[in-house]
Amino acid sequence: MVIVTKTTIPQSHLDSMIEEFKTKGFELNIIRGKDSIVIGLIGDTHALDADRLLLNPDVERIMRVQEPFKKASRKFHPMNTSIKVGNASIGDEKSFVVMAGPCSVESKEQILTVAKSVKESGAAILRGGAYKPRTSPYSFQGLELEGLELLKEARRETGLPIVTEIMSPHLVEIFENNVDIIQVGARNMQNFDLLKELGKTTKPILLKRGLSSTIEEWLMSAEYIMAGGNPNVILCERGIRTFETYTRNTLDLSAIPAVKKLSHLPVVVDPSHSAGINWMVESLSLAAMAVGADGLIVEVHNDPKSALCDGAQSLDLDQYANLMKKLGAMSTHFGKQM
Amino acid sequence: MVIVTKTTIPQSHLDSMIEEFKTKGFELNIIRGKDSIVIGLIGDTHALDADRLLLNPDVERIMRVQEPFKKASRKFHPMNTSIKVGNASIGDEKSFVVMAGPCSVESKEQILTVAKSVKESGAAILRGGAYKPRTSPYSFQGLELEGLELLKEARRETGLPIVTEIMSPHLVEIFENNVDIIQVGARNMQNFDLLKELGKTTKPILLKRGLSSTIEEWLMSAEYIMAGGNPNVILCERGIRTFETYTRNTLDLSAIPAVKKLSHLPVVVDPSHSAGINWMVESLSLAAMAVGADGLIVEVHNDPKSALCDGAQSLDLDQYANLMKKLGAMSTHFGKQM
Amino acid sequence: MVIVTKTTIPQSHLDSMIEEFKTKGFELNIIRGKDSIVIGLIGDTHALDADRLLLNPDVERIMRVQEPFKKASRKFHPMNTSIKVGNASIGDEKSFVVMAGPCSVESKEQILTVAKSVKESGAAILRGGAYKPRTSPYSFQGLELEGLELLKEARRETGLPIVTEIMSPHLVEIFENNVDIIQVGARNMQNFDLLKELGKTTKPILLKRGLSSTIEEWLMSAEYIMAGGNPNVILCERGIRTFETYTRNTLDLSAIPAVKKLSHLPVVVDPSHSAGINWMVESLSLAAMAVGADGLIVEVHNDPKSALCDGAQSLDLDQYANLMKKLGAMSTHFGKQM
Amino acid sequence: MVIVTKTTIPQSHLDSMIEEFKTKGFELNIIRGKDSIVIGLIGDTHALDADRLLLNPDVERIMRVQEPFKKASRKFHPMNTSIKVGNASIGDEKSFVVMAGPCSVESKEQILTVAKSVKESGAAILRGGAYKPRTSPYSFQGLELEGLELLKEARRETGLPIVTEIMSPHLVEIFENNVDIIQVGARNMQNFDLLKELGKTTKPILLKRGLSSTIEEWLMSAEYIMAGGNPNVILCERGIRTFETYTRNTLDLSAIPAVKKLSHLPVVVDPSHSAGINWMVESLSLAAMAVGADGLIVEVHNDPKSALCDGAQSLDLDQYANLMKKLGAMSTHFGKQM
Repeated sequence: MVIVTKTTIPQSHLDSMIEEFKTKGFELNIIRGKDSIVIGLIGDTHALDADRLLLNPDVERIMRVQEPFKKASRKFHPMNTSIKVGNASIGDEKSFVVMAGPCSVESKEQILTVAKSVKESGAAILRGGAYKPRTSPYSFQGLELEGLELLKEARRETGLPIVTEIMSPHLVEIFENNVDIIQVGARNMQNFDLLKELGKTTKPILLKRGLSSTIEEWLMSAEYIMAGGNPNVILCERGIRTFETYTRNTLDLSAIPAVKKLSHLPVVVDPSHSAGINWMVESLSLAAMAVGADGLIVEVHNDPKSALCDGAQSLDLDQYANLMKKLGAMSTHFGKQM
Repeated sequence: MVIVTKTTIPQSHLDSMIEEFKTKGFELNIIRGKDSIVIGLIGDTHALDADRLLLNPDVERIMRVQEPFKKASRKFHPMNTSIKVGNASIGDEKSFVVMAGPCSVESKEQILTVAKSVKESGAAILRGGAYKPRTSPYSFQGLELEGLELLKEARRETGLPIVTEIMSPHLVEIFENNVDIIQVGARNMQNFDLLKELGKTTKPILLKRGLSSTIEEWLMSAEYIMAGGNPNVILCERGIRTFETYTRNTLDLSAIPAVKKLSHLPVVVDPSHSAGINWMVESLSLAAMAVGADGLIVEVHNDPKSALCDGAQSLDLDQYANLMKKLGAMSTHFGKQM
Repeated sequence: MVIVTKTTIPQSHLDSMIEEFKTKGFELNIIRGKDSIVIGLIGDTHALDADRLLLNPDVERIMRVQEPFKKASRKFHPMNTSIKVGNASIGDEKSFVVMAGPCSVESKEQILTVAKSVKESGAAILRGGAYKPRTSPYSFQGLELEGLELLKEARRETGLPIVTEIMSPHLVEIFENNVDIIQVGARNMQNFDLLKELGKTTKPILLKRGLSSTIEEWLMSAEYIMAGGNPNVILCERGIRTFETYTRNTLDLSAIPAVKKLSHLPVVVDPSHSAGINWMVESLSLAAMAVGADGLIVEVHNDPKSALCDGAQSLDLDQYANLMKKLGAMSTHFGKQM
Repeated sequence: MVIVTKTTIPQSHLDSMIEEFKTKGFELNIIRGKDSIVIGLIGDTHALDADRLLLNPDVERIMRVQEPFKKASRKFHPMNTSIKVGNASIGDEKSFVVMAGPCSVESKEQILTVAKSVKESGAAILRGGAYKPRTSPYSFQGLELEGLELLKEARRETGLPIVTEIMSPHLVEIFENNVDIIQVGARNMQNFDLLKELGKTTKPILLKRGLSSTIEEWLMSAEYIMAGGNPNVILCERGIRTFETYTRNTLDLSAIPAVKKLSHLPVVVDPSHSAGINWMVESLSLAAMAVGADGLIVEVHNDPKSALCDGAQSLDLDQYANLMKKLGAMSTHFGKQM
């Protein structure tokens, strides 16, 4: 860590600051400039609350030299992490994994129809919401436990592993026993009690980026799960909130190479929630593959116009089949298996 | 609701759309323009998923005419709601209520020292964190149950009611039995499972605005609590995330008159977390009173430089006393009691 | 346009509003709902200042049904516009046009070296800054007229058309006589005096999106140029300002399909300024092609470490050659000529 | 400046970097940590392009220790700058200066009516637009020269100095000879050619903050004008662009204390454009005074419903008179003259 102070800092203040850091076990180096004094701290500063130093009126600036995450960092884990779910290897450089299914599970017929169809078109994993986070208390909130049972039935029928969203720490055990990937939604990315519970399982966790979360905060949430003992985190970029209103959110595809640089964890893209517009899903999906994502999670519905949730962004079965054809051709170009 | 379609919509499509809405009990009016057709829906559209209509390629735009919230809306509740906690009336036009205390409860001595001092300076309610949401798993996470006990001891000593943050639905019962106002932090504003649980109590809830939540989403989260049966919601503006990095967040004071227009609920301001800079707290607090807020929640610490959390934004005891003097003088000017 | 009023609007107010609109030549339709009255205006509302209507305390909401742009709109011009510059057809579905060159022209040797190299690697157009918009008055401001002359020399040597940025209306004539595409930078996207002057030429204009401009505002700036008589506008997405700080700006690739839907104008991507990080240029470029852009404008320098401006985001000559190889292979896959 | 490199940097690279900085006249200090090497540069780094250093793959981070502005900095000019215009002292701690008038000058009768009325209610300076930046080429663009003449006539009649917006460098001379304060609009905050021209006059410049400009960029634009020789810059906060859509922009009142800390320049607030809602102007104005602004610039119209521009945010004459009464009472409380 580097601390910059004014040159007008009284020597006694400087001395006591130095003393404090030495007591904490840091080595110090001090550079006196014309307009400021620069103090370099050597040692493990992960646990140091840098902001507090700014309270000192002699201190002008603070710069962290180390990243605040460790287990998620590529620095300490140079090789890509690849997570095996069913036949899919998420994070493997030679793979591009597509998860597909409806926003919410609505009925046995619906989920089976969609599951069979997306399997035929080439999905590796089935998605479907049983517990739904909805902005309005008056909107459909999901079939909950019944939805989980229907997803399991779809898994039995198709062999596809299932991914579905969890909203509360008390459901972790049920999810652990019933689903293949546990999804943490954007709104719960910093629900730390939930993250801590998920750190106790070894199930793969699909961690969506919060609407206004920086890449660093997102990796810190992954760090929560990993610090708890679960290394199986899959990151998912799903759009951030900006001033642009034409799309519901702004898909931040630059986050993919950024995450790949900073971390060894797999990262997939959700082209459905980001734009919120079904005719944009195809071009965003192709761009996600081109930019280096490890896969997609796409909303597909047998009858989007009647969907109980998020119909406007869902592909119908034919649109999805068509998307998979284009992705398939492109994956060959990029040397990836789907 | 108003639906705009292209003039090229086939008559049969238009007919079936009309039929569908009539079946759902809506009255319809249709206006044919040169470049588009405008369909007006009359009836209760709260439960209608407007976005889904955009899937129809004939549909160009949708406009909701009704607000999506009801219980939180001033339209159906023109008078201000005022919530009584201890001697304070939060939301009463003639009151300005200040809640003050440390970011986190650290020790008996610390919380008692701060509680006595802020009471003497004129706080109406004591704040203090027992469960702390921290970006890093390696940061201090709060004293938890022990912290609650220390807060209760401070309440016994000073008579000040206490407000503290909840992070998980399973703690609602404990909080209900022990604290006077339950705070929902910015990161949990859309933790819907938590909101539903809080709807079952009648404790006042201090609902912070999410970092990237629109005013409408914030009111929808209040609606969740109210729809569950708890009318005692106090809103709290604490800064939104923008591109500006000089302050940690951007305090959105325009949100105060906006909320007052849209809703009857009380709204207070957190000048500490928004800027994240202690020397800015005073001017933002005065501005909050001037703009029409019902009160403040301010971080105060007996020794900010040694605080275990958020020291950089905490006032020390003298700075707080000084702030209260200035607020006191200004409240007289504005005809408000503190 | 649709106007929503309260049901409590006095009949006399409603009558006079209706009268006013009829006088302006609009046809009106009025729908009375339970909670509001909806007024549909039929006629050309482009010139109507909708916001002013909100002053009326009886008015609750306004919705424009028509887009505010005409000449830029695909609605009135369904076919793609393709703009011919040298051998390149920008906007042609079968083409992908790459413009490349240094941030700023620094010397004869530098620009000739870069021009020859990017031509060999496959650039269709040479970019280079002569007039530079710099945040600091103490930074290098460009070679200005001398820079233009050097660009012309590079054009003579290589045959590549040149694109360079204009910053002031009084330079339009000089640019018209000397360059092939006139670039309007992000900071000048709403420099309306400049846009009006550019409307008087017929030179192709490369119009960069402002850092915080919505897609609609961007198209309105294109409309300024087109309304002045110049139909040759090429749009350029270069990243928007968001809260994320890892990248300098957030490249909004969703804007490409959005623009293609709303407008017939060509749209290219600047992968250099958006991220501001040279190792991210390649993946963003591939994503730009995949998402449907008509081309790229890329910063290339013979010695990025010594560049007088924006070195951090420039590719060196080998990195550029390598990028062009990957784009070339991908363009074959997408059926596009480069 | 502080440069952080990896510990894996080859000694030869480190040596040549050190050599380069020494050649440029810097003193260097090097701190070797466990995970990184920290290099402190001592000397004037204002002209150094820090970003370029990031191209070096051995370099991990850069931190500027000095602010990039000098003439605008309070560090080198600790006392407040106060700018005298007519009888007003903008920036004087004991003054609060209100500028008021219509968005655009529409007719002799309109501007005289408004000018006389706002003078009577207590305005110190008359505002009015002659050249108007409009998003749409089809909107009213201002009376231009005729507008300037009408403003001068209003000045003769009332004695109020006038402030009006400039949009193009070629108009600087005319403005210099005719108006008392030259306004630079938000969209032109980084129109550097305009800023350079304004640096050559000594007229006070009212520099509005760009919609997505950081506080630092805003001060850098002030620095452009000051570096050119004109020290008379008045800053104006007018709202920034965020995701919130209830208000047109988000007024960033935290920017006022921030600017006061960083700079000695006066700073005023525009409560009209920020929210874009006339009923919000009063509370935002009171908040602006409370937060420490040096004054306001407010839109006032004799007949807002018929205004040719921005009617929705204009106060009528009575609303303005009422606002001034409230501000007057509050200014007494704050010990300020109006």
